[in-house]
Amino acid sequence: MHNKNLSRSLGRHLVMDYYGVSESLSNDLDKLKQDIIDACVSVGATVINSVFHRYSPYGVSGVVIIAESNVTIHTWPEYNFISLDIYTCGDSISPYSIHQILYTKWNPKKYVGDLVNRGNKNIVDEVVF
Amino acid sequence: MHNKNLSRSLGRHLVMDYYGVSESLSNDLDKLKQDIIDACVSVGATVINSVFHRYSPYGVSGVVIIAESNVTIHTWPEYNFISLDIYTCGDSISPYSIHQILYTKWNPKKYVGDLVNRGNKNIVDEVVF
Repeated sequence: MHNKNLSRSLGRHLVMDYYGVSESLSNDLDKLKQDIIDACVSVGATVINSVFHRYSPYGVSGVVIIAESNVTIHTWPEYNFISLDIYTCGDSISPYSIHQILYTKWNPKKYVGDLVNRGNKNIVDEVVF
Repeated sequence: MHNKNLSRSLGRHLVMDYYGVSESLSNDLDKLKQDIIDACVSVGATVINSVFHRYSPYGVSGVVIIAESNVTIHTWPEYNFISLDIYTCGDSISPYSIHQILYTKWNPKKYVGDLVNRGNKNIVDEVVF
């Protein structure tokens, strides 16, 4: 995650809300975890570790840490809602490519997303420790 | 994380960039992890699990999963930069209260933050699965 040749930000953070996802999918910890890992691997990311938690009575939170950063998920099955954060560093992995795979697999009826640039290089340069 | 009495969004996600943080702090996995856990506990959050990773030659990524959602960190010690995501569900914990504690402990020279509401209830209601 430490490529000095980045352009204007250190990280790209895709903030994604998936609406209208099936309740059973969004409560299926094992499938969600495997789908995220598979998506990361298929775009060439290196999976380092993961941690997931199932809430009672429903809902899942989890994160997959990849060498290029991470993918974080929270689900509200009772609202058919999944929030997904795809955070990548360097230029080798596009967060959109991971979204595209998961969007196709999970088939939300609607999604709302925004790309947030993290670590503005201009500010990094201007704020000397 | 499953409170049906939320107002207009399911989660509140505080996206925080800390600039001008000491290089040694931002490379100190154990301290970063303990500070986040302590901050969560001190505002009344229930810590469930955590996973952290140290990159080579430097940098840390980690997440602390709390019952009320999670706190995710990525650090670039070589840029004196820390990105922090504080994501809470329900109204019991304010993401700002966790930021305030970590900001005071880590003392960045500058921070840039934005609150992102996740899971808009109007869209949840309108998109029926």
